[in-house]
Amino acid sequence: MSGQHFTEPADYGTTPRDPSMPEFVTVYEVGARDGLQNESTLVPVDVKVEFIRRLLAAGLPAVEATSFVHPLRVPQLADADEVATALSDILPTHRLPMLVPNVRGLERALDAGAREIAVFLSATESFAKENLGTDLAGQRVMTEQVIAALPAAMSVRGYVSMCWGDPWEGAVAPAVVVELVRYMLDLGMREVSLGDTIGVASPTRVEELLTMLGGAGVPMSALAVHFHDTYGQALANTVAALRCGVSIVDSSAGGLGGCPFARSATGNLATEDLVWMLDGMGVRTGVDVHEVIRTSAWLSAVMKRPLVSRTATALAAAIAEDDDRREH
Amino acid sequence: MSGQHFTEPADYGTTPRDPSMPEFVTVYEVGARDGLQNESTLVPVDVKVEFIRRLLAAGLPAVEATSFVHPLRVPQLADADEVATALSDILPTHRLPMLVPNVRGLERALDAGAREIAVFLSATESFAKENLGTDLAGQRVMTEQVIAALPAAMSVRGYVSMCWGDPWEGAVAPAVVVELVRYMLDLGMREVSLGDTIGVASPTRVEELLTMLGGAGVPMSALAVHFHDTYGQALANTVAALRCGVSIVDSSAGGLGGCPFARSATGNLATEDLVWMLDGMGVRTGVDVHEVIRTSAWLSAVMKRPLVSRTATALAAAIAEDDDRREH
Repeated sequence: MSGQHFTEPADYGTTPRDPSMPEFVTVYEVGARDGLQNESTLVPVDVKVEFIRRLLAAGLPAVEATSFVHPLRVPQLADADEVATALSDILPTHRLPMLVPNVRGLERALDAGAREIAVFLSATESFAKENLGTDLAGQRVMTEQVIAALPAAMSVRGYVSMCWGDPWEGAVAPAVVVELVRYMLDLGMREVSLGDTIGVASPTRVEELLTMLGGAGVPMSALAVHFHDTYGQALANTVAALRCGVSIVDSSAGGLGGCPFARSATGNLATEDLVWMLDGMGVRTGVDVHEVIRTSAWLSAVMKRPLVSRTATALAAAIAEDDDRREH
Repeated sequence: MSGQHFTEPADYGTTPRDPSMPEFVTVYEVGARDGLQNESTLVPVDVKVEFIRRLLAAGLPAVEATSFVHPLRVPQLADADEVATALSDILPTHRLPMLVPNVRGLERALDAGAREIAVFLSATESFAKENLGTDLAGQRVMTEQVIAALPAAMSVRGYVSMCWGDPWEGAVAPAVVVELVRYMLDLGMREVSLGDTIGVASPTRVEELLTMLGGAGVPMSALAVHFHDTYGQALANTVAALRCGVSIVDSSAGGLGGCPFARSATGNLATEDLVWMLDGMGVRTGVDVHEVIRTSAWLSAVMKRPLVSRTATALAAAIAEDDDRREH
């Protein structure tokens, strides 16, 4: 069924923002890092750089650019140094954090001109071993080494993996996450992103953890949420987090980062689906959802992969037709 | 990444039900009707009947069985009489509503043994013309003819299409929907299902309409919600409706009813994604999500279509392996 080319939520009517929602949400774009590192296709440096520049032009206020992990562990991001160098003209003026797993990664990031970094810790021992090759105590040592080696006043974002469940251990006690977040903020991190790495949170459990964090004195302004859409729950969980006062949400353009047709799909929340929802709720983001759709449609074509974002899937053709009409 | 075969939200921890959520949600299954009528593949009668019986066995309390539309208009459901007849042994004991567009459809449904019917009206003139071949006044005449021809005490479910937006007209005034719902309840309908036929609602706009309906004296217990996942918003919108007191939610096993990779995809909310979320929130449904996944995995294989439900995609292989292990 199709009619006019209505391509924005406002085309279908508007309503005042629910006062329980934040006025502004910072959409933290992870497609170029968390997205591409989980795609089987290797993407050339120039495509990555164009992807990042287009995301910034679409109004995204923070675009995680790459990760300085070991090239043999994540071949998709083996070009981190080249990507960062190619962005050197905009590093001073834009927020382009780069992930570093350890001091060696930090050194590479600094050499490449990084102005902001991100680090990650696991809420569970199993994933610390799997992902960082260390245990819960060891990952703190690694983190403290990175913090100690930082240039003065450099901003650090922290990720916590497996906040609502772990594929080896099952349940994760909220108190464990609370203690870890407190530790990370005490180290001076700018914000901590709570990761539902395997997508098993529910709105009720999101509220539970955020309420406990608030009770432990963690300001909601220091938190971000990072939901994966493995079970289709990412947007519902996002609304729950926004109601609790969180106003930074991680997402990935085009839903990059895990094919929906693979077992254990771990796709990220798609930026388009998030921005479409926030637009429809009267919550400002500064992001132009059409530009994000054009960008992820372009990248999907380059990568020969289907679009995963439902909003992008619904609108990409209509937007391309409108663009075509205006050009001719 | 994979670990144990954790296949239920409770495997990842539980938390008490949020008191703003209903204790029990009635999941109204529309896959055999709204789902199959929007699939290009024609499914044989015996497969449809097995599908419906398996859905009931999975604990679904209401399974819409078919639609008595004109066979030339919807060839996918041209076998409505045969499907209903093949279910005659369970029609007296199970809730198996059948959709009828007009008195001719009602006569066919009654001949085939229907015990409960459903009718639909459009909130907009454009869709009334497109879908029913009449205007807003004409669809009321058709509805009143059906109601007048009903056997005494037969239960009727009403659908309203395009409650939050229309592909031809764009915005739909909530007051129009409120008046139509009042009219339908005044005709004696058991419940009215509010359809977001093109998937453009947001949580804020869901709350707005439900608040207006409540203000107009419509009890939330007389309402159901029917969200399409075109823009990925269906579950977030569902949570908004539940918070307002709605406790009947329509969904489609496997997300049947619209391919996510087609333009203007109009896929239904997947039953698995809904039940997974409600399980994770401590809201009872009586539905066994594993049985629904087995059922839609089986049907997808028969129809040679990919699973659309993200929960089914994530779990189908693990559940099949566990089943295999138990058998051997």
